[in-house]
Amino acid sequence: MNVSFFQELLNSIAERGRSLLEGSADDRSAAALRDLSGALLSERGEASGVALAGEILSAYRGATDEEKSEFFAYLLNALTPDETRVSETARDYLDNPSPQTLGELETAVASPRQEFFRRLNLAPGATSNIVALRADLLRFLPKAPELAAVDADLMHLLASWFNRGFLVLRRIDWSTSASTLEKIIEYEAVHEIRGWEDLRRRLDPADRRCFGFFHPSLVDEPLIFVEVALTDNIPASIQELLAAKDIEPGETSGKRPNTAVFYSISNCQKGLQGISFGNFLIKQVVEDLTKEIPSLKTFVTLSPAPRFAAWIVRTTGEYPDMIDPDILDLLSDASWAAHAEHQERLRETLMPLAAEYFLTEKTRNGRPIDPVARFHLGNGARLERINWLGDKSAKGLRQSHGIMVNYLYDLGDIEPNHEAYVNDGEIAASKSVRSLLSSSSKTRTHKKRREADIPKNATVGADE
Amino acid sequence: MNVSFFQELLNSIAERGRSLLEGSADDRSAAALRDLSGALLSERGEASGVALAGEILSAYRGATDEEKSEFFAYLLNALTPDETRVSETARDYLDNPSPQTLGELETAVASPRQEFFRRLNLAPGATSNIVALRADLLRFLPKAPELAAVDADLMHLLASWFNRGFLVLRRIDWSTSASTLEKIIEYEAVHEIRGWEDLRRRLDPADRRCFGFFHPSLVDEPLIFVEVALTDNIPASIQELLAAKDIEPGETSGKRPNTAVFYSISNCQKGLQGISFGNFLIKQVVEDLTKEIPSLKTFVTLSPAPRFAAWIVRTTGEYPDMIDPDILDLLSDASWAAHAEHQERLRETLMPLAAEYFLTEKTRNGRPIDPVARFHLGNGARLERINWLGDKSAKGLRQSHGIMVNYLYDLGDIEPNHEAYVNDGEIAASKSVRSLLSSSSKTRTHKKRREADIPKNATVGADE
Amino acid sequence: MNVSFFQELLNSIAERGRSLLEGSADDRSAAALRDLSGALLSERGEASGVALAGEILSAYRGATDEEKSEFFAYLLNALTPDETRVSETARDYLDNPSPQTLGELETAVASPRQEFFRRLNLAPGATSNIVALRADLLRFLPKAPELAAVDADLMHLLASWFNRGFLVLRRIDWSTSASTLEKIIEYEAVHEIRGWEDLRRRLDPADRRCFGFFHPSLVDEPLIFVEVALTDNIPASIQELLAAKDIEPGETSGKRPNTAVFYSISNCQKGLQGISFGNFLIKQVVEDLTKEIPSLKTFVTLSPAPRFAAWIVRTTGEYPDMIDPDILDLLSDASWAAHAEHQERLRETLMPLAAEYFLTEKTRNGRPIDPVARFHLGNGARLERINWLGDKSAKGLRQSHGIMVNYLYDLGDIEPNHEAYVNDGEIAASKSVRSLLSSSSKTRTHKKRREADIPKNATVGADE
Amino acid sequence: MNVSFFQELLNSIAERGRSLLEGSADDRSAAALRDLSGALLSERGEASGVALAGEILSAYRGATDEEKSEFFAYLLNALTPDETRVSETARDYLDNPSPQTLGELETAVASPRQEFFRRLNLAPGATSNIVALRADLLRFLPKAPELAAVDADLMHLLASWFNRGFLVLRRIDWSTSASTLEKIIEYEAVHEIRGWEDLRRRLDPADRRCFGFFHPSLVDEPLIFVEVALTDNIPASIQELLAAKDIEPGETSGKRPNTAVFYSISNCQKGLQGISFGNFLIKQVVEDLTKEIPSLKTFVTLSPAPRFAAWIVRTTGEYPDMIDPDILDLLSDASWAAHAEHQERLRETLMPLAAEYFLTEKTRNGRPIDPVARFHLGNGARLERINWLGDKSAKGLRQSHGIMVNYLYDLGDIEPNHEAYVNDGEIAASKSVRSLLSSSSKTRTHKKRREADIPKNATVGADE
Repeated sequence: MNVSFFQELLNSIAERGRSLLEGSADDRSAAALRDLSGALLSERGEASGVALAGEILSAYRGATDEEKSEFFAYLLNALTPDETRVSETARDYLDNPSPQTLGELETAVASPRQEFFRRLNLAPGATSNIVALRADLLRFLPKAPELAAVDADLMHLLASWFNRGFLVLRRIDWSTSASTLEKIIEYEAVHEIRGWEDLRRRLDPADRRCFGFFHPSLVDEPLIFVEVALTDNIPASIQELLAAKDIEPGETSGKRPNTAVFYSISNCQKGLQGISFGNFLIKQVVEDLTKEIPSLKTFVTLSPAPRFAAWIVRTTGEYPDMIDPDILDLLSDASWAAHAEHQERLRETLMPLAAEYFLTEKTRNGRPIDPVARFHLGNGARLERINWLGDKSAKGLRQSHGIMVNYLYDLGDIEPNHEAYVNDGEIAASKSVRSLLSSSSKTRTHKKRREADIPKNATVGADE
Repeated sequence: MNVSFFQELLNSIAERGRSLLEGSADDRSAAALRDLSGALLSERGEASGVALAGEILSAYRGATDEEKSEFFAYLLNALTPDETRVSETARDYLDNPSPQTLGELETAVASPRQEFFRRLNLAPGATSNIVALRADLLRFLPKAPELAAVDADLMHLLASWFNRGFLVLRRIDWSTSASTLEKIIEYEAVHEIRGWEDLRRRLDPADRRCFGFFHPSLVDEPLIFVEVALTDNIPASIQELLAAKDIEPGETSGKRPNTAVFYSISNCQKGLQGISFGNFLIKQVVEDLTKEIPSLKTFVTLSPAPRFAAWIVRTTGEYPDMIDPDILDLLSDASWAAHAEHQERLRETLMPLAAEYFLTEKTRNGRPIDPVARFHLGNGARLERINWLGDKSAKGLRQSHGIMVNYLYDLGDIEPNHEAYVNDGEIAASKSVRSLLSSSSKTRTHKKRREADIPKNATVGADE
Repeated sequence: MNVSFFQELLNSIAERGRSLLEGSADDRSAAALRDLSGALLSERGEASGVALAGEILSAYRGATDEEKSEFFAYLLNALTPDETRVSETARDYLDNPSPQTLGELETAVASPRQEFFRRLNLAPGATSNIVALRADLLRFLPKAPELAAVDADLMHLLASWFNRGFLVLRRIDWSTSASTLEKIIEYEAVHEIRGWEDLRRRLDPADRRCFGFFHPSLVDEPLIFVEVALTDNIPASIQELLAAKDIEPGETSGKRPNTAVFYSISNCQKGLQGISFGNFLIKQVVEDLTKEIPSLKTFVTLSPAPRFAAWIVRTTGEYPDMIDPDILDLLSDASWAAHAEHQERLRETLMPLAAEYFLTEKTRNGRPIDPVARFHLGNGARLERINWLGDKSAKGLRQSHGIMVNYLYDLGDIEPNHEAYVNDGEIAASKSVRSLLSSSSKTRTHKKRREADIPKNATVGADE
Repeated sequence: MNVSFFQELLNSIAERGRSLLEGSADDRSAAALRDLSGALLSERGEASGVALAGEILSAYRGATDEEKSEFFAYLLNALTPDETRVSETARDYLDNPSPQTLGELETAVASPRQEFFRRLNLAPGATSNIVALRADLLRFLPKAPELAAVDADLMHLLASWFNRGFLVLRRIDWSTSASTLEKIIEYEAVHEIRGWEDLRRRLDPADRRCFGFFHPSLVDEPLIFVEVALTDNIPASIQELLAAKDIEPGETSGKRPNTAVFYSISNCQKGLQGISFGNFLIKQVVEDLTKEIPSLKTFVTLSPAPRFAAWIVRTTGEYPDMIDPDILDLLSDASWAAHAEHQERLRETLMPLAAEYFLTEKTRNGRPIDPVARFHLGNGARLERINWLGDKSAKGLRQSHGIMVNYLYDLGDIEPNHEAYVNDGEIAASKSVRSLLSSSSKTRTHKKRREADIPKNATVGADE
């Protein structure tokens, strides 16, 4: 492989790197990291790549944030395509566009950082270190936006390495290793798991399942996992779903389940941010559960509406008459959820607004403003039902006035739903959800006016 | 991920692809492959990538060579960067070289084929199919050299996916699966294995080892393997080394071995040609054996000299007086190896010539003309010994007049040897090998003259 | 555990045993085996049981047959209940039969050999050595019938250790280890496997299965295995069933199989003779295949009739007019099977006789004279069909004039069939088999006469 | 296998059992258990043993304690050797003692319960159910001592099935399954584990190990486990040993450990009480750790002295002048351990008494009165050191006035220590422990007198 175009530059560095490699741990520093990295890309990397890569990762793990920053700056500035060569090959191409000149241009612009990261991966256990390194990089990015170029190379490589074809779906249950399970507790992002007993209630009963994607190089480390409940109807409330079950492991309830409910899906690796696994995970689990439990006919989520409350605040700020002030007063204090009479009154107002929030409000890109909706609708699911008081937890009331929704995955509709969504911004929704909307005629009138008035960029949220 | 720049072009194709996907196997053809591939890169690929990729690979497996050729032509011509966009970004870069314009140029020249192959890998079991596809491509390449652009993309991707960091070293022995073992029989490239009993003699005795690299996505499929004998000296003859052993599995000979002999190393995957694993394999096995069997002190090969006989023919063609004609007569018939008196006479002539073949003859790139020597010297090994009558098999006599050599891996010298070899073309060799050379004064004189006369490109062989 | 009643006797031996344990391998002999065995049962066995057991097994493996015989004689004579104590406790029981006196008698008669073998099992890998030891013992038994007492103890223990609850059913296929597969080739007792390619044809096609029982302590060693073909009818000919298949692994024929054919079942461990696994194996495989392939409705064997030809010879010896002499002439030369006209003629004669062989001929215990029939009928299967020319191999023609039979396992009938067979000697057979019998009126008349004439012990075969 | 001697008796029961087997779960009861058990031993058990055994275990699991008691009474009374036959064979033996009459007597006295439990083990997962059944039986035994006969059969069988040769040693660490780890928390009998974080501190640091014996039929269920600390000296205090470590998993302290400390060993299966694994476990762990960590030279326990305090109370009751009353006053309140001046005073008195407790006090069988001492000394260990204030926990102060001891396992001495202990009651102890004794001259004088006076059976404790 041709690395000669920066090799000479690095040769002197490499010499220094060698002595460092033989030195003690004390002189490991940003300079050492730089020199070892140069050596890794030189001829020495060909001969001693595994050892050099191990040294770099060991030095990196021991580095302070400041040293890491310096290291990233080095990657940004030193490991960059040769400007002269890019210019030459660009000119050659413009003069004579051909497969050959294109190929040479492609080689010239290829970032040496990618080769660097590939060689870094030679060390035993390197992959998880590289994922951790990207998590650091993402942490630095807001204050050092120029590192985006380094991140682009790293993400490109990680997306290739963590291609779905290399992932392994594994069931996570009570016979899974403690080291994996503690990560489930740690990473659960939707409905907090309170310790090992709570975890057991999610994994062990006969009507619960948990599945994760694993990568062969990241032993015991889930990349993403989904928690599933097997039920005999589409559930409306997360608290009811999570209530402790009597069913012992191994035993089954009398009824055979007809519905699999995906009630929580969590990414585990900050360093893999932007590489999406959720779509593949849900579809694989649907396929596998269908085989394992033929009685299952319905695959559905129970999902939050995380920006609903914020949307109401913002919109009523602009359109004060959209909601009765008494209602707003009630909403300002979560204690309403404990009073049946308040519940009914708020339901009449909020349910149509929720339908509006999901179906008609759009980002500037023409997508729903709810990020969870974007994920599931983008996957080809259908918005099946909006559930009143689906989440009575403090967080649920604060974020979404307790509303939860079901997205339904119907294998036959996934592809047309996805295409209609991507190409035309069409949102697949059940009649019952649409009827909520049509019942809110006042709101809709108001809405139409608003659509004409308001610039697109007034909406909240951005595509992931 | 941005695929919109060719998406519209492909949309109409995708429509047709869908019906094909639903059609019977009979209308799968080059057209179907093309259309499904378009669909895979379109929005449909986002929703149904796993299924589409599976369809493509299934159609490909069933395709004729002609249909495969058409498919590769499609990949070459249709899945190519957008010329306009490359030109624009190239001009932008030349006008204003900056990280941003460089990044845009990099994106513009990125081959859509790489994204295509990445999506192809979504299907279950895809990776081995993609490796097989590249084997086809390499087969077509001599007659269709323009496909080199497709191959470059594919190889780039495979080199990234088969990064050493993802490979797993596994011992191969008699408890290994038959499906793996039959591949060992099939792929052994150096010293043929004649059936299962012969295989057992290579794997099962206590003084034999075999190790291979495996990739998690290619179950039971070794990528490369090395056969090792544990001995108490550096062996000179492959026939003696392979002679049936009395040692039963589990039992050991009385002596503790001090030498590990790598006597055969074979690549298994044609589709991974050009991605080198051998260097990593040998070093890993050295490391692991050192831990397992502390008595081992010497790590050495017993290797062929595959172009020695051809080199003699060619050189004596040019320098008829280099070798006594009687000797040439003797060599023309392999039966000499059965006659002790001939053996001695030939030894005196051939051993100095062998030293010359290894040490002074060079390719136009200044490397040894022996490909096995290039591999081991490039890895940092030392040419330790040239063995007279090391291989008395028909093949051994035909290719190298029976000569075999030992390359020695001394961990402390690997890095300097490698660097001296790469940077200065220096060949690490033992005194005994060098002394063979100095003893052939006549030849050397002759040689020096020759070096002045002969154009560089007269030499045989090319770097791998 | 109470070993004190022979401990004192053994103490002096134990002393000698200790020095032997420390001695070289050369003085291992029958005496050493004896002394070490004594030591194992003494207090030293409590402290160093694992080491002593390992020594004994190592010495045993290295012993000659003569030394082994001496060792078995020692086990027979020295490790026997204390006669005085048995007599005392027997008298106590007779004087006063109570749970307590019974318990004391039980303890007194318990063979110290059982405790010896249990302690022998402490050594790593002991179990397979003990199984091998019993194979030796069975070999000696015909010439040393008194060793039956040792065998009874050993078999009692092995039956307990190899209880079906400890066995693991595993599929055997092309991904199974070579060390297991070579045993399949070696142990196949019904239809010889001619090397690895032949083996592959039995394991690898999508319509073939092989399952074996394994014990956790006998790694890679099947105890028993059954070969299965998946078909869409009940096969009549083993040659057709074994004919090379076009079906590749992973691919399936268009039709979904409705029948699983057990065409070969072989025991692997001579040392476990008399401990029956076949019954459990067949039923477990029926259960597992039913789950895996719901289209399977029929479970049937294709089985030999190994004593049919011998029975004809013997019976016609007694009743010369039972078969037309021309027919007997034809049968005397297996070449008849190649001539259609002979085939037809012989069929008319032999098929009714076969029905008689299976249905009416009995051993002195009132069981069928065909040992394979005893096995399957005893398991609760039904004799479903007698197949003319089902096995045209030389062995098949020689043993059974080419006849093969199908036994059908119908889960609902297994229990009543088994009980009727065991309690009343009733043979479950299909109408078509019974009708063969009724058509041979002449034979039956003849038969009835014969039944009155012949002493029971004239029949061939014995219960297993 | 011959079960006919009670088969007829059971045949009518079996008939009833069959209908029960087909009945609903509601009529499962003691009667059902009885009838199914009869059926299992009849011919039906031959045909449908797996199903019947499964039914029995399922019925048993659902039974009340009363129903279980009835079931055990049935096993005791119905499944008993045939009295007539025992008497006949006993008489035959007395008349003519021969291997044959002995064999017949042995068969006659063999308990049908053993065959019953062997058949019960046919059901999938039966073994753990049978172990649980014995735990029930042991619970009932104090109130129903006649069930000892049933227990003897069951224990005999379990001792054979759980023979050390079938056990697998596995390391237990943080990558072990949660279902195994929760059992470690539950079963730890010596030093309580307070939840998962505490568990992690015992398993995960680089200087900690935990090993358990597992049986192949009891997945995830340890039989016994031992917790080990790797140190560089023999520790004197459990609190110091258990103090939270800084050492991260994977990292090691600078020093290489030379000592392995077994600081807790716990049996897990009540149903296997009386079958000892601890001896084998410790020796296996010593062997394995020696291989893994060659720097380890010393293998030692840190053990409690659980009856020391009780012994003092009892002995001072008899010999009021043995201890100064002031000292007894101090001891009556555990707060002394917080006062340095009290500590010193008590040390002078208690250490010699501890030496006496271990070295000179004996049970009526001539063994130490400390049960932990009996275990380790019986294994061949040496009493190495008595540690003042080794356990300052409330439990430690209450049971042993804070004393802990080290038993040292020196592989070379294990066998002679064991034999001297078993044959002569000799206790292996270090000089330092013995010197404690000699320093307590007053006590010893007093002691000698006491030995003459006191009947042996005054001592506390019983052999395990």
